Amino acid sequence: MKDQTDSSALGAIFSPRSVAIIGASTSPLKLGGRPIAFLKDYGFQGEIYPVNAAQPEVQGLKAYADVRDIPGPVDQAVMLVPAKFVEDALKACAEKGVKVVQVLTSGFAEADEEGRARQERLMEIVRETGIRITGPNALGSVSPHDRFCATFSTAFQGMHPPAGNVAVVTQSGAFGSCSYVMVARRGLGLSRIVATGNEADIDTAEVIAHLAHDPETKVICAAVESSTDGDQLRAALKTAAEAGKPVIFMKVGASEIGAAAAATHTGALAGNDKVFDTVIREGGAYRARSIEEMVDVAYVMGIGPEPKGPRAVIVSFSGGIGIMMADASEGSGMELPPQSDGLRAEVRGILDFAEGSNPLDLTAQVAVRPDALPLIHDALLSSGEYDAIVIYLANSGMSPEAFAPHLENMRLLRRQHPDKVIGVVTPPHPEVQKALEEIGVLVFEDPSRLVKAIGGAATLVARRAAALGDAPVPGDAARVDLSLPMTEARAKRLLAGAGLPVPEEAECADAESAVRAAERIGFPVVMKVLSPDIAHKTEVGGIALNLGSAGEVAEAFARITESAARHAPDARIEGVIVAPMAGEGAEIILGLHSDPVFGPMILAGAGGVMAEMLGDVSFASVPVSRARAESMVRGTGWAKLLDAWRGRPERDRAALVEAILRLSDFAVANADQVEGVEMNPILIREKGAAVLDALIVPRTV
Amino acid sequence: MKDQTDSSALGAIFSPRSVAIIGASTSPLKLGGRPIAFLKDYGFQGEIYPVNAAQPEVQGLKAYADVRDIPGPVDQAVMLVPAKFVEDALKACAEKGVKVVQVLTSGFAEADEEGRARQERLMEIVRETGIRITGPNALGSVSPHDRFCATFSTAFQGMHPPAGNVAVVTQSGAFGSCSYVMVARRGLGLSRIVATGNEADIDTAEVIAHLAHDPETKVICAAVESSTDGDQLRAALKTAAEAGKPVIFMKVGASEIGAAAAATHTGALAGNDKVFDTVIREGGAYRARSIEEMVDVAYVMGIGPEPKGPRAVIVSFSGGIGIMMADASEGSGMELPPQSDGLRAEVRGILDFAEGSNPLDLTAQVAVRPDALPLIHDALLSSGEYDAIVIYLANSGMSPEAFAPHLENMRLLRRQHPDKVIGVVTPPHPEVQKALEEIGVLVFEDPSRLVKAIGGAATLVARRAAALGDAPVPGDAARVDLSLPMTEARAKRLLAGAGLPVPEEAECADAESAVRAAERIGFPVVMKVLSPDIAHKTEVGGIALNLGSAGEVAEAFARITESAARHAPDARIEGVIVAPMAGEGAEIILGLHSDPVFGPMILAGAGGVMAEMLGDVSFASVPVSRARAESMVRGTGWAKLLDAWRGRPERDRAALVEAILRLSDFAVANADQVEGVEMNPILIREKGAAVLDALIVPRTV
Repeated sequence: MKDQTDSSALGAIFSPRSVAIIGASTSPLKLGGRPIAFLKDYGFQGEIYPVNAAQPEVQGLKAYADVRDIPGPVDQAVMLVPAKFVEDALKACAEKGVKVVQVLTSGFAEADEEGRARQERLMEIVRETGIRITGPNALGSVSPHDRFCATFSTAFQGMHPPAGNVAVVTQSGAFGSCSYVMVARRGLGLSRIVATGNEADIDTAEVIAHLAHDPETKVICAAVESSTDGDQLRAALKTAAEAGKPVIFMKVGASEIGAAAAATHTGALAGNDKVFDTVIREGGAYRARSIEEMVDVAYVMGIGPEPKGPRAVIVSFSGGIGIMMADASEGSGMELPPQSDGLRAEVRGILDFAEGSNPLDLTAQVAVRPDALPLIHDALLSSGEYDAIVIYLANSGMSPEAFAPHLENMRLLRRQHPDKVIGVVTPPHPEVQKALEEIGVLVFEDPSRLVKAIGGAATLVARRAAALGDAPVPGDAARVDLSLPMTEARAKRLLAGAGLPVPEEAECADAESAVRAAERIGFPVVMKVLSPDIAHKTEVGGIALNLGSAGEVAEAFARITESAARHAPDARIEGVIVAPMAGEGAEIILGLHSDPVFGPMILAGAGGVMAEMLGDVSFASVPVSRARAESMVRGTGWAKLLDAWRGRPERDRAALVEAILRLSDFAVANADQVEGVEMNPILIREKGAAVLDALIVPRTV
Repeated sequence: MKDQTDSSALGAIFSPRSVAIIGASTSPLKLGGRPIAFLKDYGFQGEIYPVNAAQPEVQGLKAYADVRDIPGPVDQAVMLVPAKFVEDALKACAEKGVKVVQVLTSGFAEADEEGRARQERLMEIVRETGIRITGPNALGSVSPHDRFCATFSTAFQGMHPPAGNVAVVTQSGAFGSCSYVMVARRGLGLSRIVATGNEADIDTAEVIAHLAHDPETKVICAAVESSTDGDQLRAALKTAAEAGKPVIFMKVGASEIGAAAAATHTGALAGNDKVFDTVIREGGAYRARSIEEMVDVAYVMGIGPEPKGPRAVIVSFSGGIGIMMADASEGSGMELPPQSDGLRAEVRGILDFAEGSNPLDLTAQVAVRPDALPLIHDALLSSGEYDAIVIYLANSGMSPEAFAPHLENMRLLRRQHPDKVIGVVTPPHPEVQKALEEIGVLVFEDPSRLVKAIGGAATLVARRAAALGDAPVPGDAARVDLSLPMTEARAKRLLAGAGLPVPEEAECADAESAVRAAERIGFPVVMKVLSPDIAHKTEVGGIALNLGSAGEVAEAFARITESAARHAPDARIEGVIVAPMAGEGAEIILGLHSDPVFGPMILAGAGGVMAEMLGDVSFASVPVSRARAESMVRGTGWAKLLDAWRGRPERDRAALVEAILRLSDFAVANADQVEGVEMNPILIREKGAAVLDALIVPRTV
């Protein structure tokens, strides 16, 4: 047993001094017998107390009829009795003072209505007594450092996960078993493994927050099927980011068909996957799309030092392989800045036939100058121009003998540059792999995959830095009165009041007031027929553009009201709307969306019907910081619409950033009464922005 | 030596009866000595003739001073002499009647101008004598079935690629070495390996066409850095498709940074990567984005039967894993149709607690009913509703003992369904992997990766079927006269003549002729000011929409000419253009692009400036078949713009298909004189289409 045992309930999941197995079986092959068999097999040094009313001894250990009969303190209980007995057994555990109970029994909320009610009764006990539980329908926990293994999963039968620094937290037991094996087969060790099942009490987020302060854990892999407490997840990610522990997340149900399957499976509709994605990114964590990707990024973070930044240099002696790796870097988070002139000269001084800059192609001729390799590697990293180096070493790694000189080079390079990421591409012999990993050098067989893995790690590090530097300060938008009927005009007035750039518009019943309005607004103006019955103003000739004088305004008033009346004889024509000419600009949609789990989110994207059909939008949690608003208007797909293009100047990104911040403030001030806001489009011009259409959806109580 | 030796020059690359090594070295470690050492080590049964002017014997074999001195026939020569001697040695080979020479010597076009000239002189010899060459700067060839290995690459030193059915053809030697090792480590065998280097004569395409008829080859993996002969590549893909041999392609330089690196490396600008992609797809081949992906798809095609279609069923006993696999299927080419009611009932009859349909979740309870598994698997495949089955078997594959019952099930399932793809997800023990692969069952550790690999194979099979069924029949568009100055109006007239839906427009100098034109065209019409000096007609008030009567037309004529004159006093106002109201529709860009390698290509995409900025376009080779045009307007990103949406009806896809076919005909009839065409936008309405703007770029001679 270790000296510093974590005495919290969460700590007791992994490092209990004592564990009671409630529903212990004398057969090591049965569900109730396996945890005891595993604990003995692993060599757990704490106390193991079988609880079984019918047997005085279980698998060679003294058994107790009731958990309350156990003489010493019990840190953890593993619950394996049938569902109908769990309630009483949990009460007994609470009386005994057990810190945490892993309820492995199934037949609760995941099963049916009766199970849902049963789970609710467990939660009443939890709330009344302060005892903590994982599950129900959990798969238990494993902690290799503690030789602890409390599960009935045969995934641990005869298999001891190697001790290491990667934690695997999953809701689903199968997901956890699959993931931890892939982590171990990849050459990494495990610190903690837990599957939280139904998460009635302790959820993935709480475990992440706990692991953030776990000295054995360097990297946290987490997989969820759904999240129910957005703020708890946000807080956990913040805790992990502050502790410098990378979190790599998997969430299933991202695709349409996956979401449909998830709905069948959990009975819950999948939330908007882009919102989840946003929360993960904002929290400084990384979202992986497959277990393999999760393990690859964990490998980079677990084996070597973290990348300090995105700048990598690729060194190959094949043009094609170098270009392929450059292809793989696109969108990966890895950047390939060219060498400075000075560094370029230095490299050429070592090897005059080196081609290109980054990727750097030493060409096949380097075979005659093997002495040049360590010099070039050192020069590249000593320059300070790169955070990582990726070295293609062909098939040399297949033979430990052939690889020996390369291994020496890598040892030297690691000593010279302890804080840089060093990655090698070669199909490694197991000995070669082990030797490289021991010195903190990554090795991958597939060149593209190494690039993507380092890019993923660099993405995580950059997001974490952004998350830690991010401190949104909401402004002082006023609460508004949403009890009146909501029209476009009223929505615009409210948003204008919150500081959004709504152009002045005037509703005018006659030509004279239209002229006065135009003179007040300033020429040129546009005029639109005002009628509650006409949706498509263009089609009835109900729009006049670019009216430059009082005379044109008066003439247009007559023309468009007549034209509208002629084309739509039944429509009530109330006059016209006079507004400033919107001018040229990018049509952007800016809105507020209320997510049932994650709360109010700002959304922005390409406006207009076309782009909306293409689904190109991005989200940010409210309140939005200036930094986050700025990152929203750069780098995302739709934000390209704001770029300078074909001689046209860049659009006013700062104006859009301001609009996002004002909408965020509005959302904070009116969080309880606004369900949604949509400005589509807000026109972003070369200078300034203009809300051309707006809609506010009040929250229905 | 095998009985049926292929006697062609291409066949002699892999299965020569005799090989001369020109520039043979007595040292098995030197470049010139390695091929001989490898051939002896591999146990090549044909004749090996070292050619060395200074040595009577080389590595225990009689040597010859000149290739012409060799007594018997020489099928292949391997050229290793310095660049300046290659020319004479090649002439000698031609005189000797050598079928093919692999020129491994470097220092040709890849090096400098002098090398380029040297390479050109080799090609003169090739053209004069009919001898064939690979390279120069090639890496040689390996044919495990023939125990043949003609290369100096240390990637083959002490390593014999396992004989099998996967061929690896690459330009780059490093790419080839990297790929073949990954193929072998994946559990596949190799049929042929060749690296073609500079491809002065024999190129990747010609090798693919040869391998299409190679009985030892079932799957062709190919990797190129550039293509110079588009038609040869198209023909090779057709040959392979007709022979039923899947081709899996890698091409580097797809990304911006990769393309820049490729330009540095090869001195050539990368072509439009989307065009290359299109040609591969149209040819029925698959484009992989990493070597790993290439190998994964080759694995599916090489180990088991090909998927007959895209319909797969996922069977797991974990909801989360099933959903993750469903996520991975999205966009992969794998489809997951739900079970029919009958099949669903049949499955429930076997196991009443099975959840969902596809993915089918047998839940953890299946552990108590292992007998149900083979029954369910058989029922699913016997139904005829699926082409493939993906079975999640957790970590059982780690132990051959634990896996034994599953292996029996798989053997049975394979016997029951010899033509179905069967894939298992488990981290396999090497013995388990081998046993599964021997019976043609795929095994992957990562669930998502198996799904994507089968999806890739299904994509390839579907494309191949489309390619084989595709027979474009160009129509009879007339040649046009492009010698006159090209204006928008003239371009529209020419395209109208080719059958494109150009609305009638009239240029009218006065109000009276405008009224007559409107009456001929039919109300309502639009009117635009006609002036060579006014680009933005809206901004000068130069546009009138939806004019419904002669009176409105006459009034609008006066108004917009006056307004334009007032806003642009220096502009020449020539009158107006009268055109029918375009109405509502999706704005699409439709054009013709001339690719330097692949010739004329139709392009279509989201029209207007916004979508153009987003780069959402797709291509098709001219001539375009109806089937291909139809696939262009479905499934691609921009084609979503044609969908029914929010109560709006679907756009007239048939009209866009017709427009594509008419443009294709126009391109065929005017191939020599048209460089490009751009219709942006062509408006696709609920019924019909209208070219609203058009441009033709004549070819400059």
